[in-house]
Amino acid sequence: MDAEEFRRRGKEMVDLVADYLENIEDRPVYPDVEPGYLRSLIPTEAPQDPENYEDIIKDVERVIMPGITHWHSPNFFAYFPTASSYPAMLADMLCGAIGCIGFSWGTASEATLMSLLAARCKAVRRIQATNSDMSEMEILSKLVAYTSDQAHSSVERAALIGGVKMKKVPTDEHYAVRKDMFMKMVEEDKADGLLPFYFCATLGTTPSCAFDKTEELGPLCNEENMWMHIDAAYAGSAFICPEFRPLLNGVEFADSFNFNPHKWLLINFDCSAMWVKKRADLIGAFKMDPLYLKHENQESGLVTDYRHWQIPLGRRFRSLKMWFVFRMYGLNGLQAYIRKHVVLAKEFESLVRADKRFEICADVVLGLVCFRLKGSNELNQNLLKRITQCREIHLVPCQLSGRFVLRFAICARKIESHHVQKAWQHITQLTFELLQEPEH
Amino acid sequence: MDAEEFRRRGKEMVDLVADYLENIEDRPVYPDVEPGYLRSLIPTEAPQDPENYEDIIKDVERVIMPGITHWHSPNFFAYFPTASSYPAMLADMLCGAIGCIGFSWGTASEATLMSLLAARCKAVRRIQATNSDMSEMEILSKLVAYTSDQAHSSVERAALIGGVKMKKVPTDEHYAVRKDMFMKMVEEDKADGLLPFYFCATLGTTPSCAFDKTEELGPLCNEENMWMHIDAAYAGSAFICPEFRPLLNGVEFADSFNFNPHKWLLINFDCSAMWVKKRADLIGAFKMDPLYLKHENQESGLVTDYRHWQIPLGRRFRSLKMWFVFRMYGLNGLQAYIRKHVVLAKEFESLVRADKRFEICADVVLGLVCFRLKGSNELNQNLLKRITQCREIHLVPCQLSGRFVLRFAICARKIESHHVQKAWQHITQLTFELLQEPEH
Repeated sequence: MDAEEFRRRGKEMVDLVADYLENIEDRPVYPDVEPGYLRSLIPTEAPQDPENYEDIIKDVERVIMPGITHWHSPNFFAYFPTASSYPAMLADMLCGAIGCIGFSWGTASEATLMSLLAARCKAVRRIQATNSDMSEMEILSKLVAYTSDQAHSSVERAALIGGVKMKKVPTDEHYAVRKDMFMKMVEEDKADGLLPFYFCATLGTTPSCAFDKTEELGPLCNEENMWMHIDAAYAGSAFICPEFRPLLNGVEFADSFNFNPHKWLLINFDCSAMWVKKRADLIGAFKMDPLYLKHENQESGLVTDYRHWQIPLGRRFRSLKMWFVFRMYGLNGLQAYIRKHVVLAKEFESLVRADKRFEICADVVLGLVCFRLKGSNELNQNLLKRITQCREIHLVPCQLSGRFVLRFAICARKIESHHVQKAWQHITQLTFELLQEPEH
Repeated sequence: MDAEEFRRRGKEMVDLVADYLENIEDRPVYPDVEPGYLRSLIPTEAPQDPENYEDIIKDVERVIMPGITHWHSPNFFAYFPTASSYPAMLADMLCGAIGCIGFSWGTASEATLMSLLAARCKAVRRIQATNSDMSEMEILSKLVAYTSDQAHSSVERAALIGGVKMKKVPTDEHYAVRKDMFMKMVEEDKADGLLPFYFCATLGTTPSCAFDKTEELGPLCNEENMWMHIDAAYAGSAFICPEFRPLLNGVEFADSFNFNPHKWLLINFDCSAMWVKKRADLIGAFKMDPLYLKHENQESGLVTDYRHWQIPLGRRFRSLKMWFVFRMYGLNGLQAYIRKHVVLAKEFESLVRADKRFEICADVVLGLVCFRLKGSNELNQNLLKRITQCREIHLVPCQLSGRFVLRFAICARKIESHHVQKAWQHITQLTFELLQEPEH
């Protein structure tokens, strides 16, 4: 869908929204469907090729509306009010277009935290079952979680919130966690009387897009009764392409998995997708059922109450935008989008490699290129400072093996080869100026 | 703004969104403003009367855009991508219109959890400062939090996640926590060697919209070094009306406060507003600063990094919709909206009181009426079952003093007296049919 079509469809959608709200009283306030009604109305897989927008819009009435409780109907008196106004909707349209993220990028943090808390609860129960003399506090004081020394700061934060120790496993020369080093740490901790219970693996780390060897690590976690969570926040979207699937090997050993479609799958922020092997593990840790939230299907197994899966009770209807995007792009369109980004990253990598003043600092697997000027950290800090001051492009740094490194991530939906070429020209021009200065 | 105006403005907004994205490359990718630049560009208070939509739109360029990092510019290569597509934006427009909440209503839950975790961290540090021989785990095992027996389930859940004990304080005949009962519990727990550290007060409880006596409770919490959090998720919006301010007395003793503008202040879901007295308490508990999130203003005090205030790193740009709504309604418009809901609740209360078969079960203070048929819980359960089966109106129940009670909450933006009258007619018709049956 290009901008011209968006102008047309957007105006139709404005009318659809106004029609819906003007005539909401004509709809039954409460849905007359059985749990699971949706399953037979939608295909089991995303479409291979793009569908027509008209078909999607027809399906809104056919598929979506029958299942909706109309919270804005004047016949709705349940719970407490939930707000709605035309100005807020207009603002949200603009908010969606700007789509900037308040200082960072995700709620993968929440998925990590939930998996850690579920693992903590499961470990306490398991240990108490065989050691009935140990108090919960005694167990908690001995639990130990692990993650890569390359893992996102939110992983360490989850342990801080959950009140358990977390240790960082040193990585190999590709910035990946390997079995030998991990096993050694676990054995030492067990010998010290600690209780290993959780490992957060990363597929596609934030600094360099490195991939922990889950194929080696998974069986170890399973043997040791350790929960393995996989954080694939960025890289997860790439697994829709068969050629990137080998990076996912070992996922079968995971207890939980998260990726952020709002990063690389064309779904506006926010949208994180989390999977758990046994949902009872997650639900068991946090279930609360006050009378005002009870409903007749809650014990039937037909309804998934996601409020037991997360910290907030409420969620936005995020799946709607995934549904639109999957249907409008089709799998082919989405794969083409991922592949184009990877090709552009490789193009940038080639440009860097062809310039002897620079070096590539980590394998370029997906859409991220880590590079630096051969030389001191200070030199690279100065280069980045100039880039930032010029405001023509925007990069952030990372630290790899104690070195200050520049991260070039392919981000924009409409990025083309000429943008990459122009960015590299800009960087080399600033480098030229920098190296002219007497102190270098 | 009525539906007709929304149709016009919505179509303009669609063009504005398309223009913004088509020409995004012309904008500097990174903002050239100083922290705090916004302060001088906007008034310190919400407008008394509605403003013109044109003025707001002009201000988007004047006020908002200069501060934006354009994440969707082809010149943006920082962090990882954040997704954006036209179909997702269309879906989000519809999502905003439907505005239904996934099984419940809020992220007040998150605010409660964050306040509890900050209080836990503060208590551990304070106690360790004077009892250096106590381990963190020993302290954690003795900490005790309190809340009303009427508090939302999310409060209990926060304690479960935080791994601390929580006790429920019995309420008085108005379902409010009072000082005497609370002080007795705290004294007993201290005598038992426990460490009281946190109290979550509720202003406007979920079951009956009761108000804890924070004027009495606040000084006690302050004396005992207990963090007082106020959960005013629903009722908080009403405090924009001076006549409801006395319900807020005692707020000056609170360490943190939360309400949900997405409930009753015309802001589409989701939007929770949290305040803390000393932000260092919250930040100190969770701060993490990896290199890729560092920025030059972070130690200056000029920038508030909300990522330290919450579990996710990212947030949607929610303040934009608050800004639109405040300006389009003005304080007068917002107050009129709250007052109209309260008047309609009082109207429903009068209808119930005039029918001798029914009773009112709790004070009607704002927009919630708790009522029941005089008689058994089973009778009331049957009445609610019929209401639910008819699908003309939607109510949920609650439990008050062991009795099954129906909650009639004024919710819809466009609700009028005739909707309340019709709902009552419907309820009395179903009551008539129910009481005709031989078993009653």
